[in-house]
Amino acid sequence: MTSRPAALSQTFPWIKTPLIVSAPMRLVSGHQLAVEVSKAGGIGFYGPGYDVDPVPGALRAAREAFALSDPAEVLPIGVGFLLWKAPLEPVLDVLRTYRPAAVWLFAPKDESQMQEWVYAIKSNAPGVSIWAQVGSLAEAQSIVQLDVDVLVLQGGDAGGHGISGRRGSVMQLVPEVVDMLGQRDGRGNKPLTVLAAGGIIDGRGAAAALGLGAQGVVLGTRLIASTESEAHARFRGAVVGARDGGSGTVRTRLYDELRGTGDWPEQYDGRAIVNDTFQDDVGGLSKLRNKELYDKAREAEDWNRLTMFAGTGVGLVKEVLPAGEIVEEVRREAVEVIERLGKVYA
Amino acid sequence: MTSRPAALSQTFPWIKTPLIVSAPMRLVSGHQLAVEVSKAGGIGFYGPGYDVDPVPGALRAAREAFALSDPAEVLPIGVGFLLWKAPLEPVLDVLRTYRPAAVWLFAPKDESQMQEWVYAIKSNAPGVSIWAQVGSLAEAQSIVQLDVDVLVLQGGDAGGHGISGRRGSVMQLVPEVVDMLGQRDGRGNKPLTVLAAGGIIDGRGAAAALGLGAQGVVLGTRLIASTESEAHARFRGAVVGARDGGSGTVRTRLYDELRGTGDWPEQYDGRAIVNDTFQDDVGGLSKLRNKELYDKAREAEDWNRLTMFAGTGVGLVKEVLPAGEIVEEVRREAVEVIERLGKVYA
Repeated sequence: MTSRPAALSQTFPWIKTPLIVSAPMRLVSGHQLAVEVSKAGGIGFYGPGYDVDPVPGALRAAREAFALSDPAEVLPIGVGFLLWKAPLEPVLDVLRTYRPAAVWLFAPKDESQMQEWVYAIKSNAPGVSIWAQVGSLAEAQSIVQLDVDVLVLQGGDAGGHGISGRRGSVMQLVPEVVDMLGQRDGRGNKPLTVLAAGGIIDGRGAAAALGLGAQGVVLGTRLIASTESEAHARFRGAVVGARDGGSGTVRTRLYDELRGTGDWPEQYDGRAIVNDTFQDDVGGLSKLRNKELYDKAREAEDWNRLTMFAGTGVGLVKEVLPAGEIVEEVRREAVEVIERLGKVYA
Repeated sequence: MTSRPAALSQTFPWIKTPLIVSAPMRLVSGHQLAVEVSKAGGIGFYGPGYDVDPVPGALRAAREAFALSDPAEVLPIGVGFLLWKAPLEPVLDVLRTYRPAAVWLFAPKDESQMQEWVYAIKSNAPGVSIWAQVGSLAEAQSIVQLDVDVLVLQGGDAGGHGISGRRGSVMQLVPEVVDMLGQRDGRGNKPLTVLAAGGIIDGRGAAAALGLGAQGVVLGTRLIASTESEAHARFRGAVVGARDGGSGTVRTRLYDELRGTGDWPEQYDGRAIVNDTFQDDVGGLSKLRNKELYDKAREAEDWNRLTMFAGTGVGLVKEVLPAGEIVEEVRREAVEVIERLGKVYA
């Protein structure tokens, strides 16, 4: 068994190890963030979510950023879609036309929708690396029936949306899935690349995830606080200012209900920074009144009430840096941690 | 900064690195389990919890197991107490008389009780290494005001009792506390040893925790499935049989309420395997009826209803082994993981 993502380095020849990937965070991960992550040797993901209208323009701009003139050339970033609300046909169009290297699929209404998307992308845009995000061993067991290339294993520490209900962290999820895949791969199946997401902020978290058996790591919360992030300055400031992210964030559907994204399927919730909106709800404020206050806060840009999706690692984010520097720093730190562990224990 | 537990190896000269510690699990960690862990180069903890009556007998037996004849010689295991219910004076007596190497303090009624215990032990049994278990950065910041030797950082993946409410895993808790201590230690304070607990089952989890900055790791759930564990055979069987521990365990106070340990202070809950008792509660069964069923199940030894505290890593436990073999295996695996990481990434 090797942990070097050999298959990945063929599809993504620019990547450096340890592999750092940026999560396709809706309203945060624009194409500029994705471009800078890939330029730094990671794999950047632009996250339109379910709104396909801006995608052609964003991917054209990304192609320009890489000075790609040949339309046959692959665009070295990925794009992430939320299946429950994204329209499949327009997505297939942009994949065919703008040739992003990868597509990140998450949040299907049900298993059959994930299957439909994977088959459609295989048929219509066969060069695209298909990534699927899962949050449990059961989900991973289901998804490996499909022909995907990369499994993103999201632990419960992650910010933003994930499966709701009882969950552990990557500490358990990554080894359990790696063991399951090991048994499966031994039966002649195509080896899958496994990446860890959720709670990884710096080189320590990255080294930990690699130790657990992941072949690369995903940064989300850390990159909210990047220069190229599309998050509001107040949101970025809150991420930098937060401490004690275990108690300072919460997994809830409340924020979705109040901000107008309550149409997420019921099997998902989202982790975000605890704020006045949440505290008032705990204190017994009616949803109706809370929604009024939310809407006013939105007009007034009062970020003490607005939703800021972030993971438990938010307390470890100390400053806003260019995304490329963050990727290089985490990669360098991870190697330093691995070298230190080797000196002390090996 | 070094991760080798230098201070620890003076107090615990028999330990091997990476350091593996066994958690003082009430009703699971008897003195025999603790003895085998220490004999294997770890630090074993006997877990009487709050019942001091059996402690003298157990510690005498442990002294015999190490063939200690000189009463001045330190007994190379630790003992863990649950402060909210344990009587301080009898604990001080057994620490003075039987000289365990360490005492693990957890679950005070409030901060002042932890302070009272630390001061009393320092005064009455000054040779005992004082370990304190915390579950958040805020708790860690509070506890470093006291003169303790080891901080056990318990992430939300852990089985058994811990602080209730919003929590992350060791992925966030360990780096946050290490950073906090780094700033503190830089101001001339006594360096503290930091251990990680929660979700660590094998060498992968151990290597991950060391990468996060811990100087050693604590095994709990893994050792329920040890030969020397005092857990019922059906409980051990359930631990070995469990899969998908993220969804298969739950943090709740329900089990305490039904099994007669509902007097735990309200700031604590416990993670345990999801069973019929829990599912029936979710399904709307009254607490009263559920309690009747629980009591009947206890008489009938029906473990589909009885409480089995275990962490999210329970799905990774594959077999019952002697505790000493488990410690040696995890230590060897951790080094193998670190060596593999070095070859691939450093």
